Amino acid sequence: NPITFGVLTVSDSCFQDPAKDKSGPRLVALIRDSFDNAQVVISVLPDERDLIQRELRKWIDRSDVGIIITTGGTGFAPRDVTPEATKPLLDKECNQLSLVIALASLQKTKYAALSRGLCGIADNTLVLNFPGSEKAVAECFEAVRDLLPHALHLIRDNVALVQRTHA
Amino acid sequence: NPITFGVLTVSDSCFQDPAKDKSGPRLVALIRDSFDNAQVVISVLPDERDLIQRELRKWIDRSDVGIIITTGGTGFAPRDVTPEATKPLLDKECNQLSLVIALASLQKTKYAALSRGLCGIADNTLVLNFPGSEKAVAECFEAVRDLLPHALHLIRDNVALVQRTHA
Amino acid sequence: NPITFGVLTVSDSCFQDPAKDKSGPRLVALIRDSFDNAQVVISVLPDERDLIQRELRKWIDRSDVGIIITTGGTGFAPRDVTPEATKPLLDKECNQLSLVIALASLQKTKYAALSRGLCGIADNTLVLNFPGSEKAVAECFEAVRDLLPHALHLIRDNVALVQRTHA
Ligand code: NA
Repeated sequence: NPITFGVLTVSDSCFQDPAKDKSGPRLVALIRDSFDNAQVVISVLPDERDLIQRELRKWIDRSDVGIIITTGGTGFAPRDVTPEATKPLLDKECNQLSLVIALASLQKTKYAALSRGLCGIADNTLVLNFPGSEKAVAECFEAVRDLLPHALHLIRDNVALVQRTHA
Repeated sequence: NPITFGVLTVSDSCFQDPAKDKSGPRLVALIRDSFDNAQVVISVLPDERDLIQRELRKWIDRSDVGIIITTGGTGFAPRDVTPEATKPLLDKECNQLSLVIALASLQKTKYAALSRGLCGIADNTLVLNFPGSEKAVAECFEAVRDLLPHALHLIRDNVALVQRTHA
Repeated sequence: NPITFGVLTVSDSCFQDPAKDKSGPRLVALIRDSFDNAQVVISVLPDERDLIQRELRKWIDRSDVGIIITTGGTGFAPRDVTPEATKPLLDKECNQLSLVIALASLQKTKYAALSRGLCGIADNTLVLNFPGSEKAVAECFEAVRDLLPHALHLIRDNVALVQRTHA
């Protein structure tokens, strides 16, 4: 059975011109490269809390969507509201998973201190906030890649995210 | 004067068959081995938020209980609700103490990323959520053991948790 | 244009006798030594949640105050309530900035585990809770010093905190 990932790019500029989005497609490629049975739904939204929240809610309510990864909107700028859109939807906060992502990012740049992403579970969907840059997205995904199959299996004990083995 | 620890094992399977509980007794042994004037009250409950919360409330309200350690129910499974039962009872969250526990666990296994425990203070009782495995419980206790006397002394300035010296 | 820092010492004993305050003046000196265009407003308050909150609210509402740093009241003692005074004022929590402060402190002393400070953004003001000791304040400031100009620039894109260069 396929597992559907939701990939949500949050960015005013990418919403204006989707061709500018590098992080969303990078994430999609990483997911497809990592898991044999992953499908991906994709969206690009501006930094608007209600729009972000509505899209997340819609995906959380889909029974096939097991993992949602947002990219963008986790910084200190006034319009960065992704964690604020995410948090009210979470039934459970995954503090040690967000710690692992933070530590991986901080090993690469001290400016990871200026990121505010959350991780949590809403119904039976895992939700991860990644920063907006393509480089950061690759680093964060690398930090969680090997954890996602077991995480999903715990959340939904009847599913298996099949990790692709590499030569 | 004795200080009472509350040790709460949270586990459907251990509630069904208390003989299966390895983590609770391990924690009790660690406490007794570490502190000369520690008494311990023990309970085993299923992964039911209201039952966990009620037992925690009962112990928090006891004037002799200074430290409560839960084991179990901190994972990603649907029935893992210990942090959700704990959080509403906390007057204060101890974020740097839970960070120390997380870092210690992560040094041992990357799967510690899939744990969600909290630490905090409720009235004048310190509450710590540990994971459910016996090995994790030993690691987490080791991470906080030397901190507990000073932590308790800060919370209650008229008490002393007497650390046992070892040859 | 100057940027105003708010430095708030939270301490019953320093409120009683301001001459006892070593951390507030140390923080002021560090700020002035680090930034060419920093002004500083200073206050000393007892460990009273409402008084702390009122002073923070007053500074947050000042358009010139871009960064508030509190020192004291982040511990485990009953009267330590600075994070509890701070949190309701925050529009956004800066979890990875508080992680960086925590990690820096923990490198110096294991007792940093017994600190509970928060970081966040209220309106367009960055708020940081530092512990109360002079040594801890210097360590925490060192951990964030090079991040503050960029952090403030993100929060307010029309301002620049000018870092002083040293020979
Ligand atoms: Na302000």
